[in-house]
Amino acid sequence: MSNYQQLEKHFKKLSRFNHLGAICGWDQASMMPEGGNDARSAAMAELAVYTHQLLTDPKLQALFTQAESESLSTEQQASLREMKNRWQQATVLPEDLVEAQSKAGSVCEHAWRNQRKDNNWADFQTNLEKVVELSRQEAQIRSEATGLSRYNALVDLYEPGMTTDKLDVIFADVKSWLPDLIQQIQKKQQSESVLTPQGPFAIDKQKELSVEMMKLLGFDFNHGRLDVSIHPFCGGVPTDVRMTTRYDEVDFTSALMGVIHETGHARYEQGLPKEWAELPAGEARSMGIHESQSLLFEMQLSRSLEFINLLAPTAQALFNREDDPAFTAENITLFNTRVKPAFIRVDADEVTYPAHIILRYEIERDLIEGKIEVADIPSLWNQKMTEYLGVNTEGNYTDGCMQDIHWTDGSFGYFPSYTLGAMYAAQFMATMRKEMDVEQLISDNNLTPIFTWLEANIWSKASTLTTDELVIRATGESLNPSYFKEHLISRYL
Amino acid sequence: MSNYQQLEKHFKKLSRFNHLGAICGWDQASMMPEGGNDARSAAMAELAVYTHQLLTDPKLQALFTQAESESLSTEQQASLREMKNRWQQATVLPEDLVEAQSKAGSVCEHAWRNQRKDNNWADFQTNLEKVVELSRQEAQIRSEATGLSRYNALVDLYEPGMTTDKLDVIFADVKSWLPDLIQQIQKKQQSESVLTPQGPFAIDKQKELSVEMMKLLGFDFNHGRLDVSIHPFCGGVPTDVRMTTRYDEVDFTSALMGVIHETGHARYEQGLPKEWAELPAGEARSMGIHESQSLLFEMQLSRSLEFINLLAPTAQALFNREDDPAFTAENITLFNTRVKPAFIRVDADEVTYPAHIILRYEIERDLIEGKIEVADIPSLWNQKMTEYLGVNTEGNYTDGCMQDIHWTDGSFGYFPSYTLGAMYAAQFMATMRKEMDVEQLISDNNLTPIFTWLEANIWSKASTLTTDELVIRATGESLNPSYFKEHLISRYL
Ligand SMILES: [Zn+2]
Ligand SMILES: [Zn+2]
Repeated sequence: MSNYQQLEKHFKKLSRFNHLGAICGWDQASMMPEGGNDARSAAMAELAVYTHQLLTDPKLQALFTQAESESLSTEQQASLREMKNRWQQATVLPEDLVEAQSKAGSVCEHAWRNQRKDNNWADFQTNLEKVVELSRQEAQIRSEATGLSRYNALVDLYEPGMTTDKLDVIFADVKSWLPDLIQQIQKKQQSESVLTPQGPFAIDKQKELSVEMMKLLGFDFNHGRLDVSIHPFCGGVPTDVRMTTRYDEVDFTSALMGVIHETGHARYEQGLPKEWAELPAGEARSMGIHESQSLLFEMQLSRSLEFINLLAPTAQALFNREDDPAFTAENITLFNTRVKPAFIRVDADEVTYPAHIILRYEIERDLIEGKIEVADIPSLWNQKMTEYLGVNTEGNYTDGCMQDIHWTDGSFGYFPSYTLGAMYAAQFMATMRKEMDVEQLISDNNLTPIFTWLEANIWSKASTLTTDELVIRATGESLNPSYFKEHLISRYL
Repeated sequence: MSNYQQLEKHFKKLSRFNHLGAICGWDQASMMPEGGNDARSAAMAELAVYTHQLLTDPKLQALFTQAESESLSTEQQASLREMKNRWQQATVLPEDLVEAQSKAGSVCEHAWRNQRKDNNWADFQTNLEKVVELSRQEAQIRSEATGLSRYNALVDLYEPGMTTDKLDVIFADVKSWLPDLIQQIQKKQQSESVLTPQGPFAIDKQKELSVEMMKLLGFDFNHGRLDVSIHPFCGGVPTDVRMTTRYDEVDFTSALMGVIHETGHARYEQGLPKEWAELPAGEARSMGIHESQSLLFEMQLSRSLEFINLLAPTAQALFNREDDPAFTAENITLFNTRVKPAFIRVDADEVTYPAHIILRYEIERDLIEGKIEVADIPSLWNQKMTEYLGVNTEGNYTDGCMQDIHWTDGSFGYFPSYTLGAMYAAQFMATMRKEMDVEQLISDNNLTPIFTWLEANIWSKASTLTTDELVIRATGESLNPSYFKEHLISRYL
């Protein structure tokens, strides 16, 4: 067996243990009764220790060195690169730092749940300072190992190849037009009259609607399922994707749009190439590309009038609202495209969303680079929310700088992925529009050409290309945020 | 850390990986879509390799030797004994034999599914001969390691301490009175008129009834759940017991009695002692004791008129059968206690069931000891079925010697556990009757004293005692099959 083959064997083994963890994690969130939690958490922690051992196995170093001089195909070289990346990222951190981070993160997150409710910034600040201190250490070590700047070394964990040089340019551009665009859209929408569909909407009917939409969007129920969890996610493994949602009896569009979003993630996973199964090269490219697929489904496709025309009759029939004026495709579309600056990122519409991200990006970048301190966050938050969205958060930590879970456990560098995803989605869709009449296809209930394009250009490539290579091959150019701007203007103005 | 403590740590680790396997195995049977099977099987196989490595870790030998001279409490000594048992049973077989068995077993079982349908004994015989040959090798090796006879060495895997010396005596006794008893019961039952409840019975109502009965029987839904699978089982872990059933729209009693049976298994698991959690000493004592709990629930408790009196009103209300004469407690009880010799073990009533077991015991014992060959099975089967039950199976392999899955993968030595379980159940119940008025308690819907007795005498003991010690402490004597005979006579004559 060549060194490369030995590496493949080792990483497939790792992948199989991750498979067990993914299913047990899904189970923990969606099936497990409360009383099972302690023993399950102990089992999951034991698994995490073991998979970390596998990933940092001392024998790997020699295998990597020797494999690099073996004769490999281009794809195998990419595969080797991805395996080595995982290994380096896992090996570079000293065990005691990982342990300290895990402890500080879980202390901070656990206390945050109540501190957020209590608007208790002071106590949260103390915990967060510890987390930031450790994340700075992590960033420093990763910086030395990769040659990237400290913050870039963290971004690279989620969006390989992305840097503040690029992000600063992209986000400066957005900041130059977004606040004004939001104002224009709000002005326009003031004159639109929109009806709010009135519930309650029975959960079992909502589930039926969800499943119908998943089928319409090509979800393969032979390789996945839909269940319920408090925090919806798309988990499992590519051969068995586990999607979850949460139903709200008052507003059926919330679960529905969530399901459509997760279906985008799911189809990416289900469309990953079989020949690279269980290997890093066969996994999704990055958080940003993953989010591009969910947002392409949720925002680009499903908030269009053409798509709502497909959806509305099913919803009318299931909820018995054939004569309800709130259930016309036109009204549902209007209802689903409201734009309104507000406090909470996860509830934000697609126009104001980037403002929430840019604000977080600017803060976490400067925090990790040591230019600001945790104590500076609240005033910066208020200043930027006011500037970008006209929202005052002074003294409101609950709906301000304490609203997200990401920083509590040290996931710095993740936030940009959301907006990068929206931009990739717009760019992919703009490219498709050059090759096909997307609106006509949707109107004809013929979505296959759209999925075929995504499968050929994104899903089947997995991580055999870098993100930049992937985007250039798919669209002819690197990430270009102007498509996103054009999308917003054409939909909302 | 003492050697004993190091062993505890190692076996807890093993238990946590088994936890992940138990949940993923449950998922595979009850949740997983078909298309997920290949990757899941690969992941489960990888886990099995690893847990086998853990159990045969070379460092364990020295730990066991040194732990034996450490100062240990009585319970720790029992714990050490159980850990050592697992280790010895796993270590004694050469890897290539285990591998050959796994391969031959899966070939035999896979082909059996169609061969059974096709009544194809000839081809099945060839596969089974290979399995038996390997099981004889296994028995020989285990015999040399334990000093037990070859067949006893296999029985010991499922029912530690049980031997053919005891089984021959017990089963000879049963054979001396059972055929005659069956005839007497059939004669008596001829004069009874019984109505068959007429379906269809809606699945969701059956599920509600199942859950109600599980609650009545004290199943803790904070530490477990009920789902559906093709082959019902009780899996998961003690803190999170996963029960499954299968609903038949034509006959609601089939799922109902199955659920009650599995609830007996489940309460045993849920009642295992917390202080020995994740350790072999904290696991269920044996297959026979496990089955004693399910049969105590299903046969001793739930087929009594007193229990059906509790059950019938719920069933009547759920299925809207308040005025259906087939739904009176008396009729349901009669319906649930029919005795009729027939071909299939898994469908047999509690009176004819032991005959199916004795037949299998006699054949597998002689097969493993080399006194008969696979080719002899069909004629022996027919001869014994005719003698014990008056059922002719000549030429009918499908409903004769090819009906069970056990031998296909080499699980020789397992069958006696079923009838031992029925006997232990009768003996436990007879003891309880001396301490409390069981029928009155059931009539009063006050089952707690029964569960308290089981918890104190069986569940909480786990494997800290040998089976014989457990039974003697609980009932004042070793296994005594006369209680089972008395139970059958008192219920059926
Ligand atoms: Zn997403
Ligand atoms: Zn059972």
